[in-house]
Amino acid sequence: MKLAIYGYGNLGRGAEAAILQNPDMELVGVFTRRDPNTVQTKTGAPVFAADEIYAHKDEIDAVILCGGSATDLPELTPRLARDFNVIDSFDTHANIPAHFDAVDAAAKAGHTLSLISCGWDPGMFSLSRLYASAILPDGKDYTFWGRGVSQGHSDAIRRIPGVLDARQYTVPIPEALEAIRSGAQPTLSARQKHLRECYVVAAPDADKAAIETAIKTMPNYFADYDTTVTFITAEEMQKCHSALPHGGFVIRTGKTGLQGEHTHRIEYALTLDSNPEFTAGVLIAFARAIGRMASRGETGCRTVFDIAPADLSPLSRDDLRRTML
Amino acid sequence: MKLAIYGYGNLGRGAEAAILQNPDMELVGVFTRRDPNTVQTKTGAPVFAADEIYAHKDEIDAVILCGGSATDLPELTPRLARDFNVIDSFDTHANIPAHFDAVDAAAKAGHTLSLISCGWDPGMFSLSRLYASAILPDGKDYTFWGRGVSQGHSDAIRRIPGVLDARQYTVPIPEALEAIRSGAQPTLSARQKHLRECYVVAAPDADKAAIETAIKTMPNYFADYDTTVTFITAEEMQKCHSALPHGGFVIRTGKTGLQGEHTHRIEYALTLDSNPEFTAGVLIAFARAIGRMASRGETGCRTVFDIAPADLSPLSRDDLRRTML
Repeated sequence: MKLAIYGYGNLGRGAEAAILQNPDMELVGVFTRRDPNTVQTKTGAPVFAADEIYAHKDEIDAVILCGGSATDLPELTPRLARDFNVIDSFDTHANIPAHFDAVDAAAKAGHTLSLISCGWDPGMFSLSRLYASAILPDGKDYTFWGRGVSQGHSDAIRRIPGVLDARQYTVPIPEALEAIRSGAQPTLSARQKHLRECYVVAAPDADKAAIETAIKTMPNYFADYDTTVTFITAEEMQKCHSALPHGGFVIRTGKTGLQGEHTHRIEYALTLDSNPEFTAGVLIAFARAIGRMASRGETGCRTVFDIAPADLSPLSRDDLRRTML
Repeated sequence: MKLAIYGYGNLGRGAEAAILQNPDMELVGVFTRRDPNTVQTKTGAPVFAADEIYAHKDEIDAVILCGGSATDLPELTPRLARDFNVIDSFDTHANIPAHFDAVDAAAKAGHTLSLISCGWDPGMFSLSRLYASAILPDGKDYTFWGRGVSQGHSDAIRRIPGVLDARQYTVPIPEALEAIRSGAQPTLSARQKHLRECYVVAAPDADKAAIETAIKTMPNYFADYDTTVTFITAEEMQKCHSALPHGGFVIRTGKTGLQGEHTHRIEYALTLDSNPEFTAGVLIAFARAIGRMASRGETGCRTVFDIAPADLSPLSRDDLRRTML
């Protein structure tokens, strides 16, 4: 299967590495909105200007879109879906229905197949919520993120005057996890579920107290959480905080029996050294499914909920039943 | 959706309770090979003789088969698949391909749709293995069972002369779990992964030392494991060991990056108060999918690998995208 990567940031580089791990996949090239001459891929894969992708249409089975959800994907995914099978990782949960409708219309018009909102949340965590809720209808599920770097929260801190660099870790609160695992179904506030740990490099003349206050009182991002702010040097940032770990938990507890006398717990947990590389692994597996489904004539937009798991694996259905069932 | 339960042991009673938790499901009746007059259902659902099921063919959307894998299901599932959409929990892993072929042929001949080997292993654990291996191709997965009651091992002990009752718990070894969670990919023997804890009620005149030796040296079941044997009274058995808890873990660790420089861990864990009631919950969710797929004209045999997750949920795809993705 021949894939193109559109966008070459952390996620694009992760997709490039992931394609190498899948012998049935081949990378046609990386398409970028930067000057292609300034972009050097990690594997030596060719780099093309973004708009050149249409000239490669016949060589490409699917395009992995590696842009951002805020401004790139709402425009990019529907536009490319008219001509290509595309997979994106659109993660603005509230806007998924509108994004789905736009991509579905474009893909149906172009007789292509798309998958949106693929990754681990939305993505594998969504699947865990769906399976668990279908199996244990009388139950409640909880999603925790971290310990891991939130790019959005890190960016928000960097926009504060006097901040040179910042890294924000989202940290699940152990007492909340334990309460849920016990089978209790507590109602938890944002503050009771996660801590926010911030590491900040300040300009030499910056007012650190003002920065700390600006962070801790920032609405939506930090005001509703217990937040710690630690000032560090640029060297410490580089040495201790240059990785992008992440992960989290989806936990559902539920009751069965005529009187609800039995309690069950389903827990799905991810511990990731590299958020973008893991996300890329999910995208490539689902790209395999989209390629197969498109070759069976399917068109329109899909999500992870619509994909039969067997289509994700390089193994045949016979081999899957024999070795994994 | 109208369901029938065929077989009324622990799993059949679990299915009866699970149907009540799903407002879109209705129980037509319980079909049993015992004298129906001797069977009283927990909810007052009607009880019929097994062969009467054909007289109810037009009322039944799918049949939940609650027989055993050793002798019942290999004969029963293909036979009923000729006339009904059926779901079974066939769990003899080595015989799944042959069972699949027999059921597939029967279902195609009868223009019906079947699902075999549904539950948690095979079932949800199989799905976890498949998803994780597709996402992290350069990795290794491990399945642990327990702490929980193994009915097969308990039965094997009960067949020893002088044993009145027995309960066997399969117990994962914490050191093995920790080694795997660290990202190491050890090769582990059966003995290194699980302990076997046995609780035995012996006849008053039984030779306990001989029973203990017979258990610990039993090939396949116990000889390859560290096994503990504890003799208890019938009262203790009733008080402390009458439940059927189970559960376990599927853990895959794998590497990404051009030099495999990043390690990731995917873990799926179940902690179940009642193995049969949880298994029944899985069967009912997949019965919903089979009913929908059959109404779309699909025929033949399927496994959990072939089911798009959205078909498991009572929610519409729109609602799923809006609330769970």
